[in-house]
Amino acid sequence: MLDLILSPKLFNLSPVLLTVQPDESTIFSALLLSATVVFLSGKLFEELFVRFNLPGVVGQLISGLILGVSALHILVFSESADHTVNTHIISLLQWATSADVTMASAAYANQLTAISEGVANLGVIALLFLIGLESDFDELIQVGPQAAVVALSGVVLPFVGGTLGLVYLFDIAILPAVFAGAALTATSIGITAKVLQDLGQLRSHTGQIIIGAAVLDDLLGILILSVVVSVVKGGSVSLEGLMLLVLSTTAFVGGIILLRQQLGSAFVWLTHRLKTESALLVCSVIFTLACAAVANAIHLEAILGAFAAGIILSDTEIKHQLTEQFQPLVNIVAPVFFVVIGAKTDLSALNPSNPESTTGLAIAAFLIVVAVLGKAVTGYLLPKAPMLNRLAVGVGMIPRGEVGLVFAGIGTELGILSESLTVAIVLMVIVTTLVAPLLLRGIFNPVDSMYFDSSKAMH
Amino acid sequence: MLDLILSPKLFNLSPVLLTVQPDESTIFSALLLSATVVFLSGKLFEELFVRFNLPGVVGQLISGLILGVSALHILVFSESADHTVNTHIISLLQWATSADVTMASAAYANQLTAISEGVANLGVIALLFLIGLESDFDELIQVGPQAAVVALSGVVLPFVGGTLGLVYLFDIAILPAVFAGAALTATSIGITAKVLQDLGQLRSHTGQIIIGAAVLDDLLGILILSVVVSVVKGGSVSLEGLMLLVLSTTAFVGGIILLRQQLGSAFVWLTHRLKTESALLVCSVIFTLACAAVANAIHLEAILGAFAAGIILSDTEIKHQLTEQFQPLVNIVAPVFFVVIGAKTDLSALNPSNPESTTGLAIAAFLIVVAVLGKAVTGYLLPKAPMLNRLAVGVGMIPRGEVGLVFAGIGTELGILSESLTVAIVLMVIVTTLVAPLLLRGIFNPVDSMYFDSSKAMH
Repeated sequence: MLDLILSPKLFNLSPVLLTVQPDESTIFSALLLSATVVFLSGKLFEELFVRFNLPGVVGQLISGLILGVSALHILVFSESADHTVNTHIISLLQWATSADVTMASAAYANQLTAISEGVANLGVIALLFLIGLESDFDELIQVGPQAAVVALSGVVLPFVGGTLGLVYLFDIAILPAVFAGAALTATSIGITAKVLQDLGQLRSHTGQIIIGAAVLDDLLGILILSVVVSVVKGGSVSLEGLMLLVLSTTAFVGGIILLRQQLGSAFVWLTHRLKTESALLVCSVIFTLACAAVANAIHLEAILGAFAAGIILSDTEIKHQLTEQFQPLVNIVAPVFFVVIGAKTDLSALNPSNPESTTGLAIAAFLIVVAVLGKAVTGYLLPKAPMLNRLAVGVGMIPRGEVGLVFAGIGTELGILSESLTVAIVLMVIVTTLVAPLLLRGIFNPVDSMYFDSSKAMH
Repeated sequence: MLDLILSPKLFNLSPVLLTVQPDESTIFSALLLSATVVFLSGKLFEELFVRFNLPGVVGQLISGLILGVSALHILVFSESADHTVNTHIISLLQWATSADVTMASAAYANQLTAISEGVANLGVIALLFLIGLESDFDELIQVGPQAAVVALSGVVLPFVGGTLGLVYLFDIAILPAVFAGAALTATSIGITAKVLQDLGQLRSHTGQIIIGAAVLDDLLGILILSVVVSVVKGGSVSLEGLMLLVLSTTAFVGGIILLRQQLGSAFVWLTHRLKTESALLVCSVIFTLACAAVANAIHLEAILGAFAAGIILSDTEIKHQLTEQFQPLVNIVAPVFFVVIGAKTDLSALNPSNPESTTGLAIAAFLIVVAVLGKAVTGYLLPKAPMLNRLAVGVGMIPRGEVGLVFAGIGTELGILSESLTVAIVLMVIVTTLVAPLLLRGIFNPVDSMYFDSSKAMH
C-alpha cells in the first residue's frame, strides 16, 4: 500500500519539470528529508523516554538503532556499503524529485553522511564546549589526582581483565585479545557529560571527578589506540611518535593552564567591542571551532579542544550569558550526534542462525561484565572524601559509546578481529552505553540530586 | 615564509601516528578548518562593514568574493573543477593531518561542499522561517494585490527590456537574449529580507509589500525558468508540466491560507505537552524542515516552504518566544549562506586581456541599468497609498543574489550563454546584490526607520 502511495507513477512528472530540476535539487531534497528524519526521530524517542522517566539520550541512541543499519535501514551512511537504504524512503525521495533509484539513493546516502560528518560532529563539539563552560576549572584541578586514579585504574583493570580472560577462557590469540582489551578502556565523555548535565550533577564534586577522569581517559585512549594499532600492524612502537603525542598533550594541557585567564580576558575584551548582532555567540562558535581544529591538528581529539575552549571561558563574566545562549543550540545539534551513534551501530551482526554470533554472545557476556566491573570499582580506589559518590564515579565511566565503535571499526578494517569478536565488542558498546545513563539516574535519585545541587554552594 | 611555517617537513609525523589517523580524521580536520574559515571571515567582514555603517550582509558577500574562486581560492567547492584550492590552506591541513596533497585537497573541498550544501542551505531556510514568523499574515494578504503588481511588473519590465536590448543593441541571437532576459527577473528574497530585518522594516507596510512581492517573484521565477529552459532545449513547452506547477503552487498557497490557524494551534497544543528541553525550538526546526521538504517535493522552492512554516506560526501565542529563540540560531547559520554566495561568484571571468570580457562589460553595463530600473520603478506603478515608500519597494526587489547565479549556471550548462553573456550576467548579479542593501539603507535612513517603526502600531 505504501509502495503504491509513494510510487512515482502516480505523480507522472513531465519532461519540462525534469529538465528544470538539476542534480542540486535532488541533493537539496535529500538533505531536507534526511535532516527531518534525524531530528524528528531523535526528538520523538527522547520525549518517549523522558515520559517513562528514562534518560532522553538513551531514547536518541535507540531511535538511531531502530532507524539505522540494524533495523529499518532509513539512516544508512554511504560508508557502510553492504547496506542498502530503505526502499520506502528512496521511493519518497523519488516521488519528490523524479530522480531514478540510483541517483536518489546516492543523493540520500550522501546527504546523510554529510549530516553525520557535519552536524553530528559539530553537535558533540558544541556539547563539549558547553560542558567545559559549565565546569569549574579550580575544582577540576583540585580533583585532578582523584580523576587520574579513576582514569588510570579504569584503563588498566578492563584492559588486563579483558585480555587475560579472552586468552585463557576463550582461547583467543594474543593480538586480537589485546585489541579487544583495548576497546574496553575507552569512555564516551559525550554521553556521560550529557547525562550528568541533565541530572544537574555536572558541577558537583562527583560530577567534576567523572568529567576530569573522562577527559584524561580520552587522552589515554589516543595513546592506547596508537600503540595497539602499531603493534597489530606488525611494526614496533615508534618511540618518536609516542614522544610527540605525549609532548603535544603536555603542551596543550600546560598551555590551557597557563594562558587560560589571558585568553578568556582577551575574548571578553574583543567581544565587548564588537558591534554586530550576536557577536558573543558567533565569536564563541568560531573560538570553539578554532580550539577544536588546533587540538585535532596536534593529534588530540577535537572534542578535547572544544572542552578546553569552554574551560577558558568558564572563568569570565560572560559565562552565564554564554551558557544561556549556547544551551538551545546544543539542544538542537547534540541529539543528531547520539542518533548517528545509534544508527551506525550494527546489530545485524547478531544473527542467531550464525554460529559466530553464538560464540560472540558468550564473549560479549564476558566483555560486558569486565567492562562494567572494571570501571564501576574505580570510585572505591579513591582515598576517603566527603561528598563523594563512589559508585556514581565508577558508573559514570562505563559508557563506551562512539569511542568503542571506533575501536571495533579499526579492528575490523585491520582484519585483526574475527566476526564473533566484533559482534562481542559492538554488543558490549551497546549495553554499556545504554545501561550507564539508567544506572546513573538511579544512583543520583532526585533526592540525592537536590542534595548535591545545594552542596555546590559549599565549594 | 608562510610556506616554510606551514611546511609538513617541520613537523615530521612518524608512522605510528599515520596509521592511527584514518581518513575520518582528515575529513574531520577539513571540516573544522573550513567551518572556522567560513564563520570567521563572515563575522570579520560583517563587523568591518557595520563599523563603516554599511550593511553587514554586504560584508559577508564580499568576504566570500575575496576568499572564493574569484581571488584567494580558499573557499573553493568541489563542483568548480577548474579551480584548485589555495595551496596555503592545503599545506595547513596537511600539516595538521599528514595526508598527502590529493587526499587533503579532496577532503577539504568535500567538507566545504558539505558546509555549502548543508549549513548554508539550512541557514537560508532558518532565515526564511524567521522572516515568515515575523511577518503579519493579514497584512500580507491585504498588500497581496499591491505585491502582485510589483512582482509582475518587476518581471515583465526587465525581461522585455533586457531581451529587446540584447537583440537590437548587441546583436545577440534571440534564444540567448531570452535566457539573459529571464535572468533579470529574479529577486533574492534572502538578501532583501535580511536587510529589511536589520533596518527594522520587516513589518512596515512597505516591508510587507516587498516581502510579498519577493515571494510571488520566487513563484514566478520557477515558472519562467521551467519555460525558458524547455524552450532553449528545443522542445516545446509542456503544457502538462506547467499545469502541474500552477496546480501545486495554488494548492500550496491555498493550503496555507485555509489550514494556517488549525496547523498553528495544533503545533502550539503539541509543543505545550512536550516535556523535553527546548521542545518548542526543536519542534519548530523539525516543522520548518518538513514544510521546506514538502515545498521542494511539489517543485516549489524549499525556502518558500520555510517561509510558510513561519507564516503558520506567526499568529500564535508562541510567536514572540520563538522569534527570540530562533534569532541567535539564524545569526549563526545565515551568514554562511551569504559567504557561500559570494564565494561561488566567479569574478575571474572578468579578465581584461580577454576580448570576451570587454564585450561582457559593455553588455553588463546595459543589463545593470535594465536590472536596476526595471525593478526600481515598480513601486511607482502602485495606486495611491499613505505610509508607502515607493522607491524602497522597487529598490527592495533589485538584488538578484543566488537566484541570478542559478540562471547563469544553468545557462552555461546548457551551452546557450556565450562567455561574454555569462560574464555580464554574473556582474549584473554582483552589482545588484551589493548595491541594493546600500540603497535600501540610504532610503530608510535612521529617522525614517524610527518613523516607520512607530507606525506599526497604526496597523
